[in-house]
Amino acid sequence: MTTHVNSDAGAATGGPVVPTRGAWRPLDVAAVAVTRGFWGALQETNARATLEHCENWMEREGWLANFDRVAEGRTDLVRRGWEFSDSEVYKLLEALAWEYGRTADPRLDTMIERLTARVARAMDDDGYLNTCFGHAGQPPRYSDLEFGHELYCTGHLLQAAVARVRTVGEDALVALARRTADHVCRTFAPGALERICGHPEIELGLAELGRALHVDRYVEQAAVFVERRGTGILRSIPLGQAYFQDDVPVRDATVLRGHAVRALYLAAAAVDVAVENDDAELLAAVERQWETTVARRTYVTGGMGSRHQDEGFGDDWELPPDRAYCETCAGVASVMVSWRLFLATGDVRYADLMERTLFNVVATSPRSDGRAFFYANPLQQRVAGPVPDDTVVSPRAEAGTRAAWFDVSCCPTNVARTLAAWQTYAAAVGERELVVLQYAGGRIGATLGSGTRVLVEVETAYPDDGLVTFRILETGAEAWGLRMRVPDWAQGARLEDGSGSRTVEPGFVVVDRQFTVGDEIRLHLPMAPRTTRADARIDAVRGCVAFERGPLVLCAESVDLPDGRDLDVWSVDTAVGPSERTGQTWVRIARRPDEPSTRWPYGTVPAPESESAGVEAESAEMRLVPYHSWAERGPSAMRVWLPEWR
Amino acid sequence: MTTHVNSDAGAATGGPVVPTRGAWRPLDVAAVAVTRGFWGALQETNARATLEHCENWMEREGWLANFDRVAEGRTDLVRRGWEFSDSEVYKLLEALAWEYGRTADPRLDTMIERLTARVARAMDDDGYLNTCFGHAGQPPRYSDLEFGHELYCTGHLLQAAVARVRTVGEDALVALARRTADHVCRTFAPGALERICGHPEIELGLAELGRALHVDRYVEQAAVFVERRGTGILRSIPLGQAYFQDDVPVRDATVLRGHAVRALYLAAAAVDVAVENDDAELLAAVERQWETTVARRTYVTGGMGSRHQDEGFGDDWELPPDRAYCETCAGVASVMVSWRLFLATGDVRYADLMERTLFNVVATSPRSDGRAFFYANPLQQRVAGPVPDDTVVSPRAEAGTRAAWFDVSCCPTNVARTLAAWQTYAAAVGERELVVLQYAGGRIGATLGSGTRVLVEVETAYPDDGLVTFRILETGAEAWGLRMRVPDWAQGARLEDGSGSRTVEPGFVVVDRQFTVGDEIRLHLPMAPRTTRADARIDAVRGCVAFERGPLVLCAESVDLPDGRDLDVWSVDTAVGPSERTGQTWVRIARRPDEPSTRWPYGTVPAPESESAGVEAESAEMRLVPYHSWAERGPSAMRVWLPEWR
Repeated sequence: MTTHVNSDAGAATGGPVVPTRGAWRPLDVAAVAVTRGFWGALQETNARATLEHCENWMEREGWLANFDRVAEGRTDLVRRGWEFSDSEVYKLLEALAWEYGRTADPRLDTMIERLTARVARAMDDDGYLNTCFGHAGQPPRYSDLEFGHELYCTGHLLQAAVARVRTVGEDALVALARRTADHVCRTFAPGALERICGHPEIELGLAELGRALHVDRYVEQAAVFVERRGTGILRSIPLGQAYFQDDVPVRDATVLRGHAVRALYLAAAAVDVAVENDDAELLAAVERQWETTVARRTYVTGGMGSRHQDEGFGDDWELPPDRAYCETCAGVASVMVSWRLFLATGDVRYADLMERTLFNVVATSPRSDGRAFFYANPLQQRVAGPVPDDTVVSPRAEAGTRAAWFDVSCCPTNVARTLAAWQTYAAAVGERELVVLQYAGGRIGATLGSGTRVLVEVETAYPDDGLVTFRILETGAEAWGLRMRVPDWAQGARLEDGSGSRTVEPGFVVVDRQFTVGDEIRLHLPMAPRTTRADARIDAVRGCVAFERGPLVLCAESVDLPDGRDLDVWSVDTAVGPSERTGQTWVRIARRPDEPSTRWPYGTVPAPESESAGVEAESAEMRLVPYHSWAERGPSAMRVWLPEWR
Repeated sequence: MTTHVNSDAGAATGGPVVPTRGAWRPLDVAAVAVTRGFWGALQETNARATLEHCENWMEREGWLANFDRVAEGRTDLVRRGWEFSDSEVYKLLEALAWEYGRTADPRLDTMIERLTARVARAMDDDGYLNTCFGHAGQPPRYSDLEFGHELYCTGHLLQAAVARVRTVGEDALVALARRTADHVCRTFAPGALERICGHPEIELGLAELGRALHVDRYVEQAAVFVERRGTGILRSIPLGQAYFQDDVPVRDATVLRGHAVRALYLAAAAVDVAVENDDAELLAAVERQWETTVARRTYVTGGMGSRHQDEGFGDDWELPPDRAYCETCAGVASVMVSWRLFLATGDVRYADLMERTLFNVVATSPRSDGRAFFYANPLQQRVAGPVPDDTVVSPRAEAGTRAAWFDVSCCPTNVARTLAAWQTYAAAVGERELVVLQYAGGRIGATLGSGTRVLVEVETAYPDDGLVTFRILETGAEAWGLRMRVPDWAQGARLEDGSGSRTVEPGFVVVDRQFTVGDEIRLHLPMAPRTTRADARIDAVRGCVAFERGPLVLCAESVDLPDGRDLDVWSVDTAVGPSERTGQTWVRIARRPDEPSTRWPYGTVPAPESESAGVEAESAEMRLVPYHSWAERGPSAMRVWLPEWR
């Protein structure tokens, strides 16, 4: 695979988010080349398998043909796919554009041009572009803002165009986006149609396209949409206005609520608007919402969304592992919010949550072959899922088996665009520092604010191993700082900077000096498996422990049990800590005394003695596996939180 | 209030279910007069407030006017209410009919005649009766069997007619039901339209109307519907065929699954069909499903349904208290199933579950004034609900506040019809025994199979007090048996039968002798509060205890806390058992050390010491209240399962 480091190619620079101001400046899509390891493999599979997989399924399901149907005036025929299926095409375009920016593979450019041409034919003369509304036999434009997803789709088109601007410059896709963005600004300007879309996303697209093309009007319209929301502007629905965050203005809200992806896309856009307008109050509001949401409404995996009913956040402390929704797209969206907050504030905790979510939600969704995906990411699966059938469309992949394609297939393209741009989250620069946030083998090339050009090789087998070696390949004569994130879980990390070894605390550690080519800095992150307990208010996991190793949440799968079944009768003996053998984590488990399964399951009993007292329990050593890799070895029951034997 | 005991009024006899054969024979609706106490008060409120409340809301919401609309050929106008709103009118008619049978209040008869006349005008010439399908501007008849609810509505009409047949004999409502039942049999006979309704209920109506009117064809058609189901006959839906029990034939299923009310109505009908056809295999199938469902998919309240998404059963052991759905209608339906299984088999466990469900689900739904209802009955409410607004229609009452009326208002009329016929579940007779199953102050008059006429006065303040006194008011010269249920929870019950006092075990106890008028039998049920623990496989309540007193599940409400808030930071100290003072149950609670609410809630910590070790905890005495009475004192957080201090 071709990799080109920091092309610095004129106008075509930047990643998904390029704020006008902030604590740190993001790098170009090609500045970091991940060539090896965990993320390298995921990026490679994404490029080799997932992108084409998505295009094939969208062709098969008629979502691409919907554009032809509009272009050819055949909208009286039945349309296939949900109202939001156009957005999948746009998210694929965005993924292709970032991937082309990363690898310059000409095959990708051809795909982009082909898809863009097909989309372009469906645009109306005034810049309106949607295959579900506004043509013969269809509902009128903007007649169902609550659930029609028209502006949502448009937002994704604009994000795809941003990827194109920042990798190749202005092209046909960008021209298309300009016309549709102009149409949106005209239609929804103050004094015109003063409404909003039921699913936030247009705000993200407008804000970033405005930044990329230097069109203030787009950013202003994004701000209008963000501020307009929260006053009951959308029609009342049985799930309540909180479902689409139209209950409380963003500026006043204290926690994320309602549909998780909607809530997170809106929060991300609010950061963009706050940063562009230097609006400290709005930024503080999103920081407060993030803090409360992470403290009370987030799973140990970083997953967000406790309820299936509305794909939404639950109440504070409502975090059931079995019915965890943790939609893959909410994981993607959480990364988007945290990245924007990190760039704005420089607070390391945002990068900590990003790592957790990337490893344990985003990386969990795709199957190792990149051709099937989880939609929901529960932390417990009681009943082993079905054997996957890759030839059929599933409703949503929620039941222990990744599916090749879903009826609501928002996740595969969201994973694809995130993986294609993963390296943009790995590092950033300041006036005289390079900050490395996520660790993967490869190279980071960047120009600091001071003008110093640096190139650093990163050598690591992270997260299998905790050693990360930074080797200076290029440096100016001036002193500069290499700032490294010591993850929040990394108690006892050590740094070797050439002048000795010292313990470093979680947070940031900086080596600031005049570097010489060939200098090596070594960060040792402690990878011993850890036993994790939850806040006592998280009722659903009371009396349970989880295990983590480095950034990875681990889990137990029934296929690893002595008899391969009945995961629910085993407890874990925490008197013996987890141990490592042959690169794997093992725990001691004990089988609880059998209880009958055919009688009333509640009893008036005295306080239980310790389970272990007087019981000659069957016990065993059990291997745990990274949560992201579960359900890769056939149908299996699974749990992250294991009852504690006591 | 007029009460007439065991009218024995010719053809007009019986209660909701009169099987052709079985272990026990049910009594007439007027055979048991509940004149006092818990159930007497609920019946009185139902009669005085709820029945009229339901009629008023259905008038206000246009559900009654839907019948006028059809009669007057105005179906081109927009119809109000869900597809199944007709069924609410029929359930109200059923409630009115049982209530008239119980009290002979002429006002009720007038209401029935008025409503029947209004419904009758909407019937088509061939007996089809539905306000949502089959007329100008409406979808064709039976064009959406999955969700149209046409046969479901018809089934409720037939059940209403059964109540009328068994209380006054044949009248206009019964004539209407005959015509529509004939239409259904013609339309859905083998060889005709071989389909089923997405929501079981027609089976119950046909089976019982067939029994009541001695029309075998109706019972046969019920059997056809029951047997037809389970072979994927309904259109595939994203929730899966299990949602409407079309995944596995009733005869082959091992557990209840999918939408809880659907599953339970089908199970009840399957018992009816099994009994009428002397089909031991089918009966055994439902018994097996009941047993597994009760052991693994039922809450301590008797509530069924763990999921909001599909109002359905979850997996085995998936019983979250906070997101418990426990729809009121599923409680009603569970009682229907258990009653039929009890009559068929005589097994006391069915009557035990009925008591639990009646006290803790059915009685929980209505507010004490009978004018607001819970739809869902969760066992934990984290956030105090809103102050109720009795003037508005709620989507469904799920959030800690009973609502006057719902968009989907199946529960109020279901509660009304159940309370109006509650006394029919209290006792039954055999060849030479009277069996008393549920305890309430009043009188039971019955003719045993042997012809012996008995009249027994029941004196009790149950469930406030555990003493139940049976006084013989009438008896023949022959010996006969008074069989009493000793509830499954009643360890240490005592019986005084005139010849001394003895301990009796849970199950049945029989006093069989030649009784004399004035004889008294006293059953003492132990009412000391009990500490209850759950099977270790019920993950969601690990480390928690519940408290019960007699048949009542208790709960803690935040309004009873020292500061009236933050229920989630308290544990219960089970070193001190629950105690009784002033007729109330008290427990000792201890406040857990404060944990911050704004940081990552998972930590790598060593095994926790006992919470009590070294902690000078704030502790308090807290009053518990019966679960059925929660949310009667304003908005409150609530929990049935309390974390155990250890």
